[in-house]
Amino acid sequence: MPSAPSVKLNNGKEMPLVGFGLWKVDNATCADTVYNAIKTGYRLFDGACDYGNEQEVGQGIKKAIDEKLVKREELFIVSKLWNSFHDRERVKPICKKQLQDYGIDYFDLYVIHFPIALKYVDPSVKYPPSWTSEADKVEVSKTPLSETYAAMEELYNEGLIKAIGISNYNGALLLDLQRYAKTMPQCLQIEHHPYLVQKDLLAIAEELKLTVTAYSSFGPASFVELDMTSAKDTPLLFDQQDVQAIAKKHNKSAGQVLLRWATQRGVAVIPKSNNPDRLAQNLDVCSFDLEKSEIEKISSLDKGLRFNNPLNYGLAQITGIFA
Amino acid sequence: MPSAPSVKLNNGKEMPLVGFGLWKVDNATCADTVYNAIKTGYRLFDGACDYGNEQEVGQGIKKAIDEKLVKREELFIVSKLWNSFHDRERVKPICKKQLQDYGIDYFDLYVIHFPIALKYVDPSVKYPPSWTSEADKVEVSKTPLSETYAAMEELYNEGLIKAIGISNYNGALLLDLQRYAKTMPQCLQIEHHPYLVQKDLLAIAEELKLTVTAYSSFGPASFVELDMTSAKDTPLLFDQQDVQAIAKKHNKSAGQVLLRWATQRGVAVIPKSNNPDRLAQNLDVCSFDLEKSEIEKISSLDKGLRFNNPLNYGLAQITGIFA
Repeated sequence: MPSAPSVKLNNGKEMPLVGFGLWKVDNATCADTVYNAIKTGYRLFDGACDYGNEQEVGQGIKKAIDEKLVKREELFIVSKLWNSFHDRERVKPICKKQLQDYGIDYFDLYVIHFPIALKYVDPSVKYPPSWTSEADKVEVSKTPLSETYAAMEELYNEGLIKAIGISNYNGALLLDLQRYAKTMPQCLQIEHHPYLVQKDLLAIAEELKLTVTAYSSFGPASFVELDMTSAKDTPLLFDQQDVQAIAKKHNKSAGQVLLRWATQRGVAVIPKSNNPDRLAQNLDVCSFDLEKSEIEKISSLDKGLRFNNPLNYGLAQITGIFA
Repeated sequence: MPSAPSVKLNNGKEMPLVGFGLWKVDNATCADTVYNAIKTGYRLFDGACDYGNEQEVGQGIKKAIDEKLVKREELFIVSKLWNSFHDRERVKPICKKQLQDYGIDYFDLYVIHFPIALKYVDPSVKYPPSWTSEADKVEVSKTPLSETYAAMEELYNEGLIKAIGISNYNGALLLDLQRYAKTMPQCLQIEHHPYLVQKDLLAIAEELKLTVTAYSSFGPASFVELDMTSAKDTPLLFDQQDVQAIAKKHNKSAGQVLLRWATQRGVAVIPKSNNPDRLAQNLDVCSFDLEKSEIEKISSLDKGLRFNNPLNYGLAQITGIFA
């Protein structure tokens, strides 16, 4: 059975370098998908409130634990705080609701999903949450990131979460976070692929001892199905000549090369797949090494191309997060 | 005498759209330069603590006022809070010292120079300040931007400054500022030229009703004299064919076209020159209009190329501010 090595976080906790990303995993098949992924060897599951499938993820996990495929402490379960729960008093209740949906009593990692604070929407009114309020508009909240972060530290101190993460933060936000944090976060999750290498951001993450997890490791492939113009207009990374040549040389798939390009540089990955073969392949991406020149060749595809920008979803009201 | 139109800030105060930038103005000639600039028609002077010439600027201003060339209230004097004075209790004392150096009792605009907090260095030990501490190292302070901003609001409420500015903030920092600010700032100062158009950042500034001032409007030209590799390796904007053709058509200089490209889009500019003819030319950049297609042609030179990044000065310790 393939397995992925772990990386030690700045608080001593171990995190698998390869996990399973739950974004866009259908509710109907989600429990089975998770159960099968555990069978395949996955131990890290990267979920979020707004993926809308946390109960089903929990069902898959429960089945695997019940069948003694795995113990809870062998899993690394990640979830995220959605934008509409940034107000300080909303953080703990929603975290507890999410834990309840999973049927567990702690998250291994809980992540501020975006550095964006939206107006609170009660889960009894609308859940899973989205970018819009009850009035179906994008409405912001006035809670500064420092307050939301303080609430995350409380969860950590209470043991409800074993590590703190932030996602979609840029360098300047990290520098400010370092000033107001009492406990530094362990993880930073960002869009990261050969079209968006983010060299400077990785450098500051390293300096701040943050472990970086890449999402959308395959670049445009994750966004084509969302019908995003910039994704459809960009050659798939799988089809890039250099990626294909390197894959051929190592007798691996292009996807494996893209994931190895990240993990070999210390960046964790969370691919998803519904295909059992691909599932195993994606996990088995630390069993071969790219040469330094191959890594550099792939990195040279960089063009600062970001897909997961609220602007690309037509959310002009939150212009500026990546400006 | 040429003059520049004004723009109304979000607090109703008027700010000239063209001013004189004091960065790298030699101490020896500074007082005369400022005096001559006032004679030429300049009313806005953009200084900063770390430019190290505030006393001389003050002398030039005093001479012009003494000779009744201009009244204090006709001038718009800008200065900036340096990184090493971000600690809340340091803000007012240094602002007062700077006012004393100028020989005035209020700034029309006072700007947080960088979203970077450095360890305090007493002015009696080292002044003007720099990126390094007494120990000649880059050492950071733990004061979050929200606290420094609160101190700026106090200066504003006391009338020591008539408008609040921030500089080198990106979109995500502006969104967070909006959450913790009791009084929104009036101005945002950023590097801005046809190689760094910052369309998204300008959009959020507009949404937040911030007036944007461009520094380094001529792009690499400002940095070549600092011996910066990326500046030397980039064609000067003055030499760009499109810029030259547009200049020729309007019978203006390339510099005037670059400044008009900014001002016509509502972005204030602060060029500097030691040459009297150029000084007048730079001020006279609102007397002609570029066509929409010309503005777009110039904007299409954009390549996200930033020169004023601490990393470019070898300050690897503050990696990340623009990451």
